[in-house]
Formats: sequence, structure tokens, C-alpha cells
Amino acid sequence: MPDKRLSELCKICSDNGFETRLDGADMAVHAVNTLEDACEGEVSFLSNPKYIPSLATTKASAVVVQDGVEVPSGVSALRCKDPYAAVTVAIIALHGYRRHPKWGVSERANIDPSAKIGRDAQIAPGATIAADVEIGDGCTIYPGCYVADRVRIGHECVLYPNVVVYDDCVLGHRVTIHSGSVIGEDGLGYAPYDGKWIKIPQAGYTVIGDDVEIGANCAIDRATLGKTEIGSGTKFGNVVVIGHGTKVGPDCMFVGLVGIAGSAKIGKHVTVAGQSGVGGHITVGDDVSIAGQSGVHNDVEAGMKVFGYPADEIGKARRSVIAVRKLPDWIKRVKQLEKELSQLRELVNENAKT
Amino acid sequence: MPDKRLSELCKICSDNGFETRLDGADMAVHAVNTLEDACEGEVSFLSNPKYIPSLATTKASAVVVQDGVEVPSGVSALRCKDPYAAVTVAIIALHGYRRHPKWGVSERANIDPSAKIGRDAQIAPGATIAADVEIGDGCTIYPGCYVADRVRIGHECVLYPNVVVYDDCVLGHRVTIHSGSVIGEDGLGYAPYDGKWIKIPQAGYTVIGDDVEIGANCAIDRATLGKTEIGSGTKFGNVVVIGHGTKVGPDCMFVGLVGIAGSAKIGKHVTVAGQSGVGGHITVGDDVSIAGQSGVHNDVEAGMKVFGYPADEIGKARRSVIAVRKLPDWIKRVKQLEKELSQLRELVNENAKT
Amino acid sequence: MPDKRLSELCKICSDNGFETRLDGADMAVHAVNTLEDACEGEVSFLSNPKYIPSLATTKASAVVVQDGVEVPSGVSALRCKDPYAAVTVAIIALHGYRRHPKWGVSERANIDPSAKIGRDAQIAPGATIAADVEIGDGCTIYPGCYVADRVRIGHECVLYPNVVVYDDCVLGHRVTIHSGSVIGEDGLGYAPYDGKWIKIPQAGYTVIGDDVEIGANCAIDRATLGKTEIGSGTKFGNVVVIGHGTKVGPDCMFVGLVGIAGSAKIGKHVTVAGQSGVGGHITVGDDVSIAGQSGVHNDVEAGMKVFGYPADEIGKARRSVIAVRKLPDWIKRVKQLEKELSQLRELVNENAKT
Repeated sequence: MPDKRLSELCKICSDNGFETRLDGADMAVHAVNTLEDACEGEVSFLSNPKYIPSLATTKASAVVVQDGVEVPSGVSALRCKDPYAAVTVAIIALHGYRRHPKWGVSERANIDPSAKIGRDAQIAPGATIAADVEIGDGCTIYPGCYVADRVRIGHECVLYPNVVVYDDCVLGHRVTIHSGSVIGEDGLGYAPYDGKWIKIPQAGYTVIGDDVEIGANCAIDRATLGKTEIGSGTKFGNVVVIGHGTKVGPDCMFVGLVGIAGSAKIGKHVTVAGQSGVGGHITVGDDVSIAGQSGVHNDVEAGMKVFGYPADEIGKARRSVIAVRKLPDWIKRVKQLEKELSQLRELVNENAKT
Repeated sequence: MPDKRLSELCKICSDNGFETRLDGADMAVHAVNTLEDACEGEVSFLSNPKYIPSLATTKASAVVVQDGVEVPSGVSALRCKDPYAAVTVAIIALHGYRRHPKWGVSERANIDPSAKIGRDAQIAPGATIAADVEIGDGCTIYPGCYVADRVRIGHECVLYPNVVVYDDCVLGHRVTIHSGSVIGEDGLGYAPYDGKWIKIPQAGYTVIGDDVEIGANCAIDRATLGKTEIGSGTKFGNVVVIGHGTKVGPDCMFVGLVGIAGSAKIGKHVTVAGQSGVGGHITVGDDVSIAGQSGVHNDVEAGMKVFGYPADEIGKARRSVIAVRKLPDWIKRVKQLEKELSQLRELVNENAKT
Repeated sequence: MPDKRLSELCKICSDNGFETRLDGADMAVHAVNTLEDACEGEVSFLSNPKYIPSLATTKASAVVVQDGVEVPSGVSALRCKDPYAAVTVAIIALHGYRRHPKWGVSERANIDPSAKIGRDAQIAPGATIAADVEIGDGCTIYPGCYVADRVRIGHECVLYPNVVVYDDCVLGHRVTIHSGSVIGEDGLGYAPYDGKWIKIPQAGYTVIGDDVEIGANCAIDRATLGKTEIGSGTKFGNVVVIGHGTKVGPDCMFVGLVGIAGSAKIGKHVTVAGQSGVGGHITVGDDVSIAGQSGVHNDVEAGMKVFGYPADEIGKARRSVIAVRKLPDWIKRVKQLEKELSQLRELVNENAKT
């Protein structure tokens, strides 16, 4: 990408709705970097107050900051109400998104003759496109991907290397799936019979909405019957595991190592932090926020923030944590009470005698 | 699969040992579906009482229910003591299990000349079968699988795309491994020496019993010495991680994101719910049930149900959870006691003076 | 590997700095095995006292033990202060490390003409080496690996099947990555905007130091800006997930299913046990030990051992666990106190009347 002058960056940020003003010398910059790692010719930013000490020592030529934040002399400030938003715009302007290799439809890919491949789709050597698959325009399918029978993929999707999509699953438009993730594998569906497990055919499939991005090494079960659904605009980190028949709403964000059991219903714009779990058949309302390593055992109402194991309203859960930490002190106080009560009883008895 | 009449389905269920009786009009159905998603021409079921409200509004033509459950007019009932078992039979009859592609032994697979491939085995393009491997009759090895030197695989096994089996491992008959799972990688075996970690050669291997099914993106270490074992009939969900030298008994069921550390011994028919962990060198008895997100730090006797972190007998663990939730109230009561005792002491002292 | 006489093994251990003395008959052994599984002609060891009962019944011809440990008659003892270290030396001597297949640079690999491949590097059929990649001398790249544009890999590295390294990442010398692991995928970097998530280009990369070993199915994000770093000599188990921009110091050991959120700083020689998590932007000092299933929500000072959720100093955390387990008893004692105080108050009031 070409360098940009700071005045140009300000204009681009402002044009994108994040009014930004140059305070200091105008100059060309070629990259965005962290305060700690930035060099001359790079622009940095301060968003998390934790990093204020790094501002004094940064070697960046410019920093995106809020009004009123003092900047070392010789460093230009790009002042904006929301530095995180402005720096996002700056990263897009200076770095852009990843450009994928152009293989065309490789002769070294294994493509079933019945598959339909859209215009300008890139199918890499070593990718497999099975029978009756439909792949939209402008898709990029990296090596080692396996797209099974009858899968339908929309336009402008990217499957990074070694992604597997099982038979009959459906991906919307602009879906990105990172390496090693598996979509639509059989869930853990067995009927117990005489101490053994009889496999229930997993006759359903998985539907991924538009603009979904899924991290590396995730696993999203197909439904036993009907469909597992991931709503449009939802983003998953790495190693997110979704059980069979679960419905995840649009615009959710799930962090790494999250597990949602089968037949759960997760609303829209729900955030689930790392290593948290939601039990089977649980309903989680819209805009819920689940803190890290929580275990959700019961339905959660819309808008709640929960934490803990089992998860509880975050304020209550934190008070419990604090109470538990002080528990040894409280136990001492109970012992002391028992002693004092006993002494007082003796005193009362003695007084009564006299 | 061809449609089936409800009377035929009843007969098939009864023939399989689940006596089922048609209560309502006989008709042809072509699929099983959930109460919520079913359409005309589909059969549904009620097993979990949570879904009773969906029964009233289902568009299914028929439902599998217990005796005495009322069904909307116009919907036929298939009555059976165990609807979950009967519907399993119905799903098998109407949907069957997945049919795999037929590649024969592909010329685009990488097969070492020393490997022995059984009759009717399907080896996909892009699969690798290394030196001295033995693969049984009727196996299906999807693209991207790597079967390393000297691995032995029984009859009728299925390795979905991108499964890796490290050298010397042994799989029984009818083993199914879903995409991205890794069998027999080196465990975390290092000897500490002078602040560094010296790698201990992982000289053992992994043995998977008959009829085992393993979910997507699991990782089952080889043993340092001897073998890691997964017993026959055991089923794993996605991203189950098993440490080196661990022995898992037959007919167990481990849900997603479960981790068992090295050298553990897990009995037969043990169920481990999602995100739970078992520590190294721990022994877990037969028929134990470990609830979700539990951490097992000590041996568990046969038949116990445990929960919590560290895991405890489930009744005790639940009482602790309830007690912790009420802890802020108890702390108030202790403070109140301290105040009242102090007041009473003053009163006693005053009384004594008078 | 050839057999070794016990006297030879003692000499090799002693030469490696672990003084070992033969106490019993000298003979040839061909393998190391566990006490339980060892047969005649094999040497075993006792390091964990939990296995003392197995010593009496072992069929091993010899055992590595500390001075003073009694050994059954007919079994030779190899006596050493540190049996675990000595047996590590014995395993290396008798079993050695894995020997990899020799493909040379396969014509069935997909290698961009701009890539530079070192001397004696082995590039398997079905591996992809993209544009401007540099691969050092003596590397082994198994089938299904994808090494993206501009990646640089040092000497003597091993990428097991289906490892993916995203563009621009850097691996040191003697790095080993097990199957299915992904290095440098995009992290969960989105700017919230009007209820949607705007993707922030992940413009950074990942650097893996020398002598690092990474288990199966791990995922190590690239940084948004700058680099994610894994220090030299660090070892990861399976399914370890590292967030974007996190720095992990040298000589750490992370067990399976560990998750470290983004922008964390982990010191040197830190051990993190299974299923534990560290929050974003957290600093963990050198030589810290984090017990299994812990959740680290705050900075941890060098040298501390922590446990729990949220993690606390291990002694305090254990006292809390014990206190919680006894909580129902303490609640009874508080109720009893309330009752006794009330009775005493009545008594005092009655006494006052009289």
C-alpha cells in the first residue's frame, strides 16, 4: 500500500464518520503499530489507558489520541473522540485486508464434474469440491479444503487451508473460515441401549449466515434433524465448539475455547468470553454478555451480564467471589462469637448466683 | 430413502424391541424432524418435556409420544414407552447413515508400495498411506488424511478429511474419526534440566478399540512408553484432548472440550460433560458421571456423580454452590450477631452494676 | 536401535551427568517401559511414589530407582539420585527420536518458484510452499502443510501433517509443530460500530523462537500490529490458543486446552496447567505456576503459584476451597449462635426482672 500523509489520514477518518484533526507537523507514514513497537514513519494510538506510560517513550511519528491527551514533543497528534475507531480506519487505509493467491480453478484441485463454480472463484491445488456442490462468485478455497456433497457456498467466501465443510451445509455470502475449522460434522447423538451407545443418524445440516467469520480449529456440529444455525455477522475466535441443533443469533462474538452444547438458543449480539460454556437446551437472550470461564446452566434474560460457575448476574457473582475470599476471616469471627457467647453465658450464670 | 407409512414405522420400531402403536390415520412420511421445524409429511417426537408447548403448534403429520400424551387433532400419534429409542429407529429407517464417496484406491492418493490395503477400501485423492501401513476391508479414507508408518487400521473404519494418525498407532474395526482429529501425536513429555525442557522420546503408541467414534479436532497423545488406550464403544465429541499414557475404558461418552491429563485411568461407561478436566495419574471408576466444567483432582469411586472445581459428590457440590450464593446474607447475620452480642454484654455489665 | 547392556546404560547416564550405579545382574535390554506393561528384556523406573505397589509385580528385567528403594529379587536395579532424568537418557539411548520419511523435495508438492528451500529439506507430496517463502536446511514439511507467502522458517524444523502457517510469520530453528496446528491466523479483531463488528485488518504476524514445540490443533493468532511472540524453548500441549499480540516468554510449558487472551505478557519459565486461561492485557511474571482450570484476571508477580477462578495465591485459594466445602457446617453454627444468643438474652431479661 502507498504511504499516506497524516493530513490525508485525518480526512479519511473524518470521511468515515470519525472526525479527526491533525495537531502537529504533517508528514508521510507507512504503517500503524503499537506504542511500544512503532518506529519513525509509523503512526500509533492510545485507546486503553493502561498504555499511557508507553506514550511518553514511543518512537512513533504520530499518535491517534483523544482531545486533551498530552503527546511528547516532536510527535504529531491525530485527535479524535474515538481513537480505536479512527485507528481501525487508518489500518484499513495503510495496510488493507489480506490479498489471496490467484490459482484460478486449479487443475490440481479435485473437482467433481457436477459441481458449479462461480465466476472468478479461486480453487487451489489440493482442494476437493465434491458432487453437486455450488460455489459462488469470487470465492477463495485454499489447499486442503474439503467441500462435501451438495454444500452450497455464497459469493466472496474464503476458506483458509484445511477447512472441511460436511455434506449439505450452507454458507452465506462473505463468510470467512480460518484454517482447520470443521463445519457440519456429526454431533454426539447416540441413544443409550443396554449400556452401549446406538448412533442416531445426524440427518440435519449447518447453515452459516452472511458476513460470519470463524476462527481456526472450530467445530460446528450439524443438527440431528433440521439445522444448526450461525446468524449473519457473527464472529468466532479459535476452537469454538457448537453442539448439534444449536441456533446462534446474528452479530454475536464468541472468544476462543467457548463451547455451546446442543439445542441451545443464543440471541443476537451476545458476547461470550474465553473458555465459557452454555448447557444444552438453554436459551440466552439478546445482548447478553457472558464473562470468561463462566458456565451457563440456566436461561439468561436479554441484556444481562453474567459470570461464574454456575453463572449468575455479574454483580452478585462478584460479591460471592469477594465473600469467598474473606471466608477464612468470617470463620474466625464465628469462632470468636462462639467463645464470647460462652463467656457471656458463664458471666450471666455467675451474676445470677450472686 | 423411500417414504414409509406410519404403520410400517410402527412395525419396524416394534421389531427392534420398542413396541409402538399407531393412534390416528395411517399415511406416508418421508423424514423425521423437530416439533418446531417439521412440515407436512414429516414425523416428529416428544421426549424432553421442555418441548411440550411445541407439540400444540407442530406442523408434523405424526409424532412419536408416550401413552397418555395428548396430540393435536389431525396429527397421528405413534405411541411407545421410549419415544427417544423409537425415533432413533425411525431416523435410521427414513434417513439412514451417511453414504461415502467411492474413489476406489485413487491414483492421486500417495500410497507407499509397502502398505497393505483391504478389499473395497476407498482411498481418496490426496490421502497419504505411509510405509508398512495395514488398512482393513471396506475402510474409507478421505482426502488430506495422513496415515503414518506402521499404523494398523481394522475393517470398515472411516477417517474423515484431514485426520492424522501418527506412526505405530492401532485402530480397531468400525472406528470413525471426524475431520481434523489427530491420533498419536507426541505428548508433553519433557524432563526439566537447568531451567530448560529436555524432550523425552515418545516411544509408545495409541490404541483405539472397536466401534469408537471420535469428533472433530480431537487430539489423543501417544504414550511415552507402552500405550494410550481408548476402549471399545467409546464416543468422543469435538476437541477432546487425551494425555499420554491415559487409559479410557469401553462405552464412555466424553462431550466437547474435555481434557484428560496423562496417565489417568478412566473406567467403563463413564460420562464426562463439556469442558471438564481430569488430572494426571487419577483413577475414575466405572459408571462415573462428571458434570460440565468440573475439575477432577482426586480419584473417583465407581458409580459416583461428581461436579465442581475441585469436583465433589454432586449433592455436596450443589449445597456448596447454594451456600456460596447466600454467603453475603450469612455475613450480614454474623455482623448482626456481633452487634447483638456486644449490646447484650453491655446490658449484662450494667445489670451487674445495679 | 540396538540393545544395550545395563552396564552400558549406567555409563551413558553417568556420562550425561546423572551418576547411575548397577545393583544386580548385568544383561541386555531392548526397551524402556512402564512398571505395569514392561516385559522381560525391558527396563522400567520408579519416579512417582504412587507406583510403588507396581514395583513388586513388575516383569521388567531392571528398574531405575533411587538409593534405598528395595527391588524384587531377580530384578536388577539401576540406582540414581534422579530416576526420571536417568530414564530420559535411557529412552533416548534405547528408542531415539522419531525418524521422518525422506521425500526430498517432492514433485507432487506445490512449491512457488520464488520460494527458497534449504539443503536436505524434505517437502512432502501435497505440501504447499507459497511465494517468497524461505525454508531452512534440514526441515521436514509433511503432507497437507500450507506455508503462506513470505513465511521464514529456520533450520531443522518439523511441520507435521496439516500444519498451516499464515503469511509473514517467522519460525526459528528446530521448531516442531504437531498436526493440525495453525500459526498466525487472524485474531478476533473487530471494532464495534452500530451493533455490528467491523473487521480490523490483522496487519501483524507471529514469531516462534528456537526449540519451540507446539502440540496438535493449537491456534496462535498473528498480532493486529507488530507481533505475537512465543519465546525460545517454550513447549505447548494440544489445543493451546494464544490471542493476538500476546508475548510468551522462553522456556514456558503450557498444557492442553490453555487459552491466553490477546496482548498478554507471560514471563519466562511459566507453567500453565490444563484448561487454564489468562485474560487480555494481563502481565504474568517469570517462573509463575498456574494450576489447572484457573482463570487469571489480574497481573501475577514473578515466582507465584496461583490457583482458582479468579486465580489467587495457591495457599489462600486452597483455604477458600476448604472453607467453602465446610460452609454448610458454618451456616449451622451461625444458626445455633443466633438461637443461643436469643436464649441468653431472654435469660438476662428474666434475671433483670427478678
